Amino acid sequence: MPAVHIVRFEYQDAVHWGVIRQNLITPIPGNFATTGEFIGQNSIDDLLQLKGVELAENEVKLLSPVTRNQQFVCQGANYRQHMIESGMDPDAKNFNMIFTKATSCLVAADSDLIKPRNVRFLDYEIELGLVMKRAITGPVSVTDDNLHEFVAGVVIVNDYSARDIQIPQMQFYKGKSFRTFGPVGPYLCLLGPQDMHYLKALQLRLTVNGQVRQSDSTANLVYGPAETLTELSSVQDLAPGDLLATGTPAGCALSVPSPGKQRIAALLPEAAKWKMFLKVQEKRSQYLKPGDQVEAHIRSTDGLIDLGVQRNRVVGER
Amino acid sequence: MPAVHIVRFEYQDAVHWGVIRQNLITPIPGNFATTGEFIGQNSIDDLLQLKGVELAENEVKLLSPVTRNQQFVCQGANYRQHMIESGMDPDAKNFNMIFTKATSCLVAADSDLIKPRNVRFLDYEIELGLVMKRAITGPVSVTDDNLHEFVAGVVIVNDYSARDIQIPQMQFYKGKSFRTFGPVGPYLCLLGPQDMHYLKALQLRLTVNGQVRQSDSTANLVYGPAETLTELSSVQDLAPGDLLATGTPAGCALSVPSPGKQRIAALLPEAAKWKMFLKVQEKRSQYLKPGDQVEAHIRSTDGLIDLGVQRNRVVGER
Repeated sequence: MPAVHIVRFEYQDAVHWGVIRQNLITPIPGNFATTGEFIGQNSIDDLLQLKGVELAENEVKLLSPVTRNQQFVCQGANYRQHMIESGMDPDAKNFNMIFTKATSCLVAADSDLIKPRNVRFLDYEIELGLVMKRAITGPVSVTDDNLHEFVAGVVIVNDYSARDIQIPQMQFYKGKSFRTFGPVGPYLCLLGPQDMHYLKALQLRLTVNGQVRQSDSTANLVYGPAETLTELSSVQDLAPGDLLATGTPAGCALSVPSPGKQRIAALLPEAAKWKMFLKVQEKRSQYLKPGDQVEAHIRSTDGLIDLGVQRNRVVGER
Repeated sequence: MPAVHIVRFEYQDAVHWGVIRQNLITPIPGNFATTGEFIGQNSIDDLLQLKGVELAENEVKLLSPVTRNQQFVCQGANYRQHMIESGMDPDAKNFNMIFTKATSCLVAADSDLIKPRNVRFLDYEIELGLVMKRAITGPVSVTDDNLHEFVAGVVIVNDYSARDIQIPQMQFYKGKSFRTFGPVGPYLCLLGPQDMHYLKALQLRLTVNGQVRQSDSTANLVYGPAETLTELSSVQDLAPGDLLATGTPAGCALSVPSPGKQRIAALLPEAAKWKMFLKVQEKRSQYLKPGDQVEAHIRSTDGLIDLGVQRNRVVGER
């Protein structure tokens, strides 16, 4: 049984949900105001049987399949190579870094990315997003065997980041929460128990103006979905439809100094330290500029799971 | 015209809102599922006129006046003395630190504080919480003159923090989001334009087992409400009823090493650095233990604004 790919879209001034197959959308009967409602009221089996009129993908306006009333929780530094490049040891597994983005940054997959006037170093971060299936209201033990009870499906997330705000201000929230900094979708792929193995074998690829910047497999995640949800459940509640972005692979524009250089920089007064940090970033031509085109893809090598393509054009703030 | 003090409470198996005056509650007609709905549908003038049956405060179960569907945004390091003790220069105003807490940590003002089994260094942080009045969906210029259009009122917040998670894991979110780590209330004081000056003259006081640990005035806030909301509006949306906790004064259990010691510690390998940090905290008897009683008060010196008392008993996780 193949996984089902879902879209949320605007058509004739109303918002609908639909199953998408080979660029043709079959609308799903019913009104679902939020991703949580949609997930609670539709089963993969029913959706697989769904028949009816078909709309071409280019006839509709695709929206984010995750609505803004859901939580937007993120993991940091969670790919092996990315950690190694940042001077961390992925095998040490010291801690699973968790932060959030404001949900007002959540936009459709083809949205323009607005570069705020006061931001100099705008960076991309392709990530696999997990969409929650059931509510978590206390500690639970999530394993690969029961993961399908907790995770409804997956989406592409781009965790756009203003590095000159995120890094010197220490707490990541503000630099990652600007409006348009969180494209999600276009497709939400719902996974059944027999599809869960794909979570460890999805290929992520991000290009800027056609040039590959990030390319990795979820096989290289350091903290996997089961152990992350187990830990999170001991801290906070999660609701159906909530989004957990699982971290980004190596290849961002950000240049992280080696641990040795970081130790020397730590001896400097704060102002001098951050001046040096910004000077290093200035030499990185990879940072996004107005006019750049960012494309993000996530799919399985067998092609059965394909989360679609995100295309974001960078525009300056007016 | 005095400010109005609001409570949200459970009485005879239903949730109500009410005006509280001298420990007597007058229920407010209507059903308001969220703080945003309550604020949108009630004016201070109408509430001042409200008459009707009165309930004694001890007949009802008080709830948090901020509901869990609202955002819980926080400022860090925002009192002059607290910054100085942390080795920062409050006059430099380098940046306004912003992070979030999970809304599932939001509980009533008299809730037990559950110390998670794996947390060693549990700390308190009394804070003034601002509750938003109108939606912000784009950049706005908030000044002391128009602040009343944006801020509906104020509450006590305790930003309880697991220091052994918050500090070594760098991102504050997880260590501050455990269930019961965010008591809010008991009273929401709605402020009119003529009451806004109180925001700069509220006295905060926190005791543990009767001993004063934190005592300061909002006069010593580094980033005030107007400039904070102006900046936040350039980043994210805010909805009516959303909560902004404005940071805590000096006096927490946390011992922050001097800038000189921090620079030397930065030369150590990560593991050694955090071992040293934890060793220093072990000597701080101020950290909370099961059985401790924390009390938090915020009021104006003239007594016209009184946000009530938070009382939290620390209990071990079962």
